[in-house]
Amino acid sequence: MNSPLASLIIIGNEVLSGKTEDKNIQFLALGLSDLGIILKEVRIVPDIKSDIIIAVNELRKKYDYVFTTGGIGPTHDDITSESIAEAFNVKYVLNDEANKILEEYYNGTDREYNNSRKKMAFMPENASLIHNKETFAPGFIVENVYVMAGIPYVMHAMFDAIKDSLRRGNTIHSKSIDVYLPESSFAEEFAKLQNEYPEIEMGSYPFRRREKWGATLSMRSSNLEQLDLAFEKLHEMLSMFQS
Amino acid sequence: MNSPLASLIIIGNEVLSGKTEDKNIQFLALGLSDLGIILKEVRIVPDIKSDIIIAVNELRKKYDYVFTTGGIGPTHDDITSESIAEAFNVKYVLNDEANKILEEYYNGTDREYNNSRKKMAFMPENASLIHNKETFAPGFIVENVYVMAGIPYVMHAMFDAIKDSLRRGNTIHSKSIDVYLPESSFAEEFAKLQNEYPEIEMGSYPFRRREKWGATLSMRSSNLEQLDLAFEKLHEMLSMFQS
Repeated sequence: MNSPLASLIIIGNEVLSGKTEDKNIQFLALGLSDLGIILKEVRIVPDIKSDIIIAVNELRKKYDYVFTTGGIGPTHDDITSESIAEAFNVKYVLNDEANKILEEYYNGTDREYNNSRKKMAFMPENASLIHNKETFAPGFIVENVYVMAGIPYVMHAMFDAIKDSLRRGNTIHSKSIDVYLPESSFAEEFAKLQNEYPEIEMGSYPFRRREKWGATLSMRSSNLEQLDLAFEKLHEMLSMFQS
Repeated sequence: MNSPLASLIIIGNEVLSGKTEDKNIQFLALGLSDLGIILKEVRIVPDIKSDIIIAVNELRKKYDYVFTTGGIGPTHDDITSESIAEAFNVKYVLNDEANKILEEYYNGTDREYNNSRKKMAFMPENASLIHNKETFAPGFIVENVYVMAGIPYVMHAMFDAIKDSLRRGNTIHSKSIDVYLPESSFAEEFAKLQNEYPEIEMGSYPFRRREKWGATLSMRSSNLEQLDLAFEKLHEMLSMFQS
């Protein structure tokens, strides 16, 4: 079974200017990993229609799934929905279902259902909604593109709402160990191990903690038996270096 | 004066798997912003040569600067330098200057200058080195592509080492205010203000704190006079909504 491949587009000037630190990438990376879906690429693009359209059209052809976060609110800089419609070359229209939900919600408040609020019900024609437990304003799906809010806790709720509908891949198992050795000490032996088990993704991620160099050695694979075997060999290999 | 446009490529499976949370995007976004350089796009790609090459070749043609982080260490999954050489279609060779630095360093330790260590001196032909105060292992520059380490504090030192050599743009001034109002209340008025001052980048970034909705209203521009004027008008506008 082939594991589905995914990409994520973060839409927002605030991340590119450094004003806001992204909080969505890791959540989605872990969430997809749990489903056996491989996140292959992330792009962060500004609130500029042509940039969003280029990214969406490149990635939706290249990957099984494209997720986007950000730009679906009521303000003038929220241009994701319109851009997605243009990317798919479909009309940008009032979605009746979304409109009904929003109208009912605002009728129950002391706030008027004004044009900015109604804007959140405009979507590409034939989009299906992403309902979620945190907000009445829905995200939406067009073909393989899943459009979600940028606010982390709303995005989380939207991802929760869609994740059971996504095609799963093989469960990816992962094991790792931290060692306080410079990478260059074990690099050659580690490369040999990688060659011995080519289907296991082996990585070394250096760190420096309390003035000491070290690295996290990581192994990932959908083949748990092979992973266990390779990880055991890694332990043996490392015992050569421990004093 | 045109402000230079930049992009950033984060190279690393560990970010795409969710194992590691990115810590480099915001640092570089803020650092570039301080220099008046506009970060237009970020891509996160896996440790796969063809993916790195595609990203580098697309972005180096599109932007004035490309910065990369990650993948220049001694382990088998560090394939950035080789990929950059291939992207530029130049040889991947032992850099004499880097080799001398590394050799001298290891000769002063009880560790052998082995092949993994020597690997860190292999670079695209004619690369110029990025020395830095944190580590003897240098990054490098090929044309408009700046190749830096992934470990945040080493990357910071490398960016410090190159930043004075980058072409500066107009200083970008920024002002913002947090309001505890739902975005949909002020969206229409805010859009009018944006239309009145088209050269100012105005954004609204919603948040939820202690069960209350709010938004950060932000204005960015290299024209400080206009920015001050527009920001004053924003205050006036918001006073309409405050109870």
